[in-house]
Amino acid sequence: MEKPAISKPTLQRLPIYLNYLQSLPKSVKTTSAKQVALALGLNEVQVRKDLSVASPNGGKPKTGYEVEQLKEDLEEFLGYHHPKEAILIGVGKLGTALLSFTGFQQLGMKIFCAFDNDPEKIGKEINHIPIASVHEMKKICLERQIHIGILTTRPEPAQELCNWMLESGILAIWNFSTALLNVPENIIVHNENLAVSLAMISHQLDEQQKKESAV
Amino acid sequence: MEKPAISKPTLQRLPIYLNYLQSLPKSVKTTSAKQVALALGLNEVQVRKDLSVASPNGGKPKTGYEVEQLKEDLEEFLGYHHPKEAILIGVGKLGTALLSFTGFQQLGMKIFCAFDNDPEKIGKEINHIPIASVHEMKKICLERQIHIGILTTRPEPAQELCNWMLESGILAIWNFSTALLNVPENIIVHNENLAVSLAMISHQLDEQQKKESAV
Repeated sequence: MEKPAISKPTLQRLPIYLNYLQSLPKSVKTTSAKQVALALGLNEVQVRKDLSVASPNGGKPKTGYEVEQLKEDLEEFLGYHHPKEAILIGVGKLGTALLSFTGFQQLGMKIFCAFDNDPEKIGKEINHIPIASVHEMKKICLERQIHIGILTTRPEPAQELCNWMLESGILAIWNFSTALLNVPENIIVHNENLAVSLAMISHQLDEQQKKESAV
Repeated sequence: MEKPAISKPTLQRLPIYLNYLQSLPKSVKTTSAKQVALALGLNEVQVRKDLSVASPNGGKPKTGYEVEQLKEDLEEFLGYHHPKEAILIGVGKLGTALLSFTGFQQLGMKIFCAFDNDPEKIGKEINHIPIASVHEMKKICLERQIHIGILTTRPEPAQELCNWMLESGILAIWNFSTALLNVPENIIVHNENLAVSLAMISHQLDEQQKKESAV
């Protein structure tokens, strides 16, 4: 299916619409942009636009959307019906946690193999995902045509491993390491930094408490 | 220590500076905004400003910053020396993964207790963190004066549990559920949505591949 271009904010809202629809009782057969907007506290015009991108033929005047069809269209648009294969590099604390998380497949991604350089880890499995040597990465990725790499190493080796990934045909990197990666323009990097999130939360909390104690 | 107001982008860069400094060999005793900027591919003026916020007395003309002192100042600013206690609600797949992650404490947060409503889980421990009934949340949080709540439930019960958290004195919510939470203005919500990240990566990858196959 040819997908239309879509803005980042719209794309960020689609999983939220899907979750809302999944939370509806089975007895609810139809919905509308207005209802979704009301339920989620969003702007109706915006919701209407977003839904028309993900489900261009779904909305009917007067009746609105059929809930089941709209769920299907959102799942299809988000690629949940055809999980993409990914690799994970760095089976440390965070890598292990992510390998243990069994919810990725429902979200359109399947981790095919993990890589590490620790002989103690190589050859083992976590959550049925095998751990191989980083030296096998290129062969495995090119054979399986895997294009998504999840990077969960310390920052020091991150750039080198990033380069190896690119040689292995990886086109999109989900970067959980705290390193800033240098990549060619056509490579997608999505930074996910728990340290940054924690710094934000912690600092905002301090600020808030300072403000309240000053009142 | 009274901390100055700080912009969000600055706060997001501080953990990245710290990581860079931690990656330096021990023989490197001093550094400068210029060096940090060069190493990380950032703007020097920006780095200079950022560092002066986190380490107001650290930078000396000519010699620059002492690496050890700057690391100390960044860690102090980011609250790493005094981990804040947090609770986690929802010991499902993602909650279990986060409880298993032993890196939070180095990042200034310690999960004191987890909560669930599943009798099979209550009373057990993950990574030495006890799992209690959600009905004990209020008592425990008020007693320990815990202000950070990590929400890792399905979206359906998220708002109700959010309300319980607020009654329990929680001021900052790290929201890994896909629900949009309604909270009073003074409450901090930091949304962390793996489904959204995955949707972004997956879609950008599709777009990129479409572009390349069109060339």
